[in-house]
Amino acid sequence: MEEIQGGVAAPLKFKANGIACGIKNSKKDLALIYSEASAHACGVFTRNMVKAAPVMLSSSYLACGRARAVIINSGNANAATGARGMEDARLVSVETARRLGVDANHTPVFSTGIIGKFLPVEKIINGLDSLIEGLSETGGGRAAEAILTTDTFIKQKAVSIDIGGVEVRLGAMAKGSGMIAPDMATMLCFITTDAVIEPAALSRAFKEAVKVSFNSITVDGDCSTNDSVLVLANGASGNKIISGGGAGYRKFKFALLYIASELSRMIVKDGEGATKFFEVKTRGARTLADAKKVCFGVCNSLLVKTAVSGENPNWGRILSAAGSSGAFVDQDRISVFLGGVAVFKDGSPAVYRKQDAEEVMKSPEIIITVDLGLGGKSWSVFSADLSEDYVRINKEYS
Amino acid sequence: MEEIQGGVAAPLKFKANGIACGIKNSKKDLALIYSEASAHACGVFTRNMVKAAPVMLSSSYLACGRARAVIINSGNANAATGARGMEDARLVSVETARRLGVDANHTPVFSTGIIGKFLPVEKIINGLDSLIEGLSETGGGRAAEAILTTDTFIKQKAVSIDIGGVEVRLGAMAKGSGMIAPDMATMLCFITTDAVIEPAALSRAFKEAVKVSFNSITVDGDCSTNDSVLVLANGASGNKIISGGGAGYRKFKFALLYIASELSRMIVKDGEGATKFFEVKTRGARTLADAKKVCFGVCNSLLVKTAVSGENPNWGRILSAAGSSGAFVDQDRISVFLGGVAVFKDGSPAVYRKQDAEEVMKSPEIIITVDLGLGGKSWSVFSADLSEDYVRINKEYS
Repeated sequence: MEEIQGGVAAPLKFKANGIACGIKNSKKDLALIYSEASAHACGVFTRNMVKAAPVMLSSSYLACGRARAVIINSGNANAATGARGMEDARLVSVETARRLGVDANHTPVFSTGIIGKFLPVEKIINGLDSLIEGLSETGGGRAAEAILTTDTFIKQKAVSIDIGGVEVRLGAMAKGSGMIAPDMATMLCFITTDAVIEPAALSRAFKEAVKVSFNSITVDGDCSTNDSVLVLANGASGNKIISGGGAGYRKFKFALLYIASELSRMIVKDGEGATKFFEVKTRGARTLADAKKVCFGVCNSLLVKTAVSGENPNWGRILSAAGSSGAFVDQDRISVFLGGVAVFKDGSPAVYRKQDAEEVMKSPEIIITVDLGLGGKSWSVFSADLSEDYVRINKEYS
Repeated sequence: MEEIQGGVAAPLKFKANGIACGIKNSKKDLALIYSEASAHACGVFTRNMVKAAPVMLSSSYLACGRARAVIINSGNANAATGARGMEDARLVSVETARRLGVDANHTPVFSTGIIGKFLPVEKIINGLDSLIEGLSETGGGRAAEAILTTDTFIKQKAVSIDIGGVEVRLGAMAKGSGMIAPDMATMLCFITTDAVIEPAALSRAFKEAVKVSFNSITVDGDCSTNDSVLVLANGASGNKIISGGGAGYRKFKFALLYIASELSRMIVKDGEGATKFFEVKTRGARTLADAKKVCFGVCNSLLVKTAVSGENPNWGRILSAAGSSGAFVDQDRISVFLGGVAVFKDGSPAVYRKQDAEEVMKSPEIIITVDLGLGGKSWSVFSADLSEDYVRINKEYS
């Protein structure tokens, strides 16, 4: 596997562009990904029961399993906008598809930005011609820029792998919630590939990749109305078809997982207010569900987050968060490690050098391990600390 | 119902005291409640699967349904202390009971303070004689002071009611998590009464009171290893026995509910870093469980908490938190109110004057109503905002 340039436009027969259509003040706010060939597509969407209009529309589109283009605006989430929001999303999709000469239901639409305001549809439609005109193999960066809201850096990645002697490319772009600006707390990620792959195999690899990447990060525990991750595979590389097993599948899945993990970590790291990152590894759980509960319980505990922020090796907070996570735990069998330092062992305080634990907390990335001592299941979640800046930024009245 | 003085020692034949035994620097840290007659007792304890030693010991004691004395120390939680912690808790209980001439299993013990340090048992035992010597009908305030950790004010309350022409008293004291000092994030409450009441009726009234008071507040979503609420009824008032129905039961239950609600609100209001208080009322839910999920989902959302802190009428955050609370919601039927201002109505943004919503957010106590429009169930939870101070205080390395 090799890193390559180009983001979502790196795979063959993919083009992209991003422009400023006027939703945001002079910043890029409209992005388009276009495949010259029809692509297999699948997506995963927010589990929030309050879903933005474009999420509802696009998830119904994607039921057909194919897509040609993806249109995304930033600056307005088109969420909590009722029936008019649905009409607006449909209009953007229809107008984009018509200009590209493709089907509207092959043109999913996504939005990110402020909640509860109607989409400025006219601005978007007025921008479409110039957006399409500028589509190019070198437009990945512009598209990646146009989907940002409060993010502080562009998030994109592309890799190349060898499948049976044929070069296959995967590209991706993402935006994060920035851990801030809550009206804009959306996570979006778009992955493209020129792999030839069976739809069922694509779907399986994609869902597994999302599970351990985008579904294993947490910034503030809030799940937005617009979160979406999408993959498009247009088959342009001409590799021998990847089916659900074998070396080709494993290689492809590994690359997809790599790209999804890298982008999901970029999202956490771009959390404004975030000063430290920590990974909670839970092992020895009876079930996978329990392992996940402990990971999320510890990551989302305000007391753990502030301890991390303060470089405070306060393992009592970790233990308490694990105990109230909803997972089955037996406190006499739990062990807790800060980095490599055992601070609590088999249900009792461990003997350790205080300065060793303090040293671990000083590093910019901290690994916290909770061993439940009950079974063989494990999981891992990546998160960020809670700083005064997070509060300050989120208090501000926009 | 009338407010009276005396806290936990206000009911007849109850005495209390609080002293400094040396766990904390010169501050009171050891409290005792004593009933001259054997009392019916019941308790509810933390649902955290990591439980402090005294919680495990006392909940087993309370299975017998009776108690004579309650011994509580602050400054050390005796949590995450393994087998030795259990021995220490037992020793405190046995030594206290022996000096009082009562049974150890009628002498539950509670601790609050730092997690993961062994209890300084010797200091406690050395303090017992002077603690017992000072027991008095006027000692309620001293006891209430001795159970505090990072609380900024004493929390106690007592009321008198008339049951069939006989005066019956209820008293209580509590300590909160202070929303801070996480190693000390324990909520404790002890309620005394001289009512003559059937054990089953006492238990039922108590559990209902706890459900809508202590189990309906949330400060930072963290549930401690030591949380406990206890009620003792010694029958000293001589009223006609209260059974599970009738006017007497209703009067008693109302008084218990009042006292529990008042103390639980004091706990939220003493959250350090807390600058505002808000109540989330959910109505129109299909099930009670759904109504509670929405209340807690909105109260525990960092984005909602920071919006409240910033006086920011950002109802999109409320809607999104309701949608991801795990409750069943239909976004086309939800309405959201800030105070009396409808900001989102039946699934669409409402028309309202921005300044009206802003005005609501400026008051020190804010009521947020989420109407799911689906059924007849409702619930209410009381909470506090998230300020920079919360983070600052919790970052500090003790």
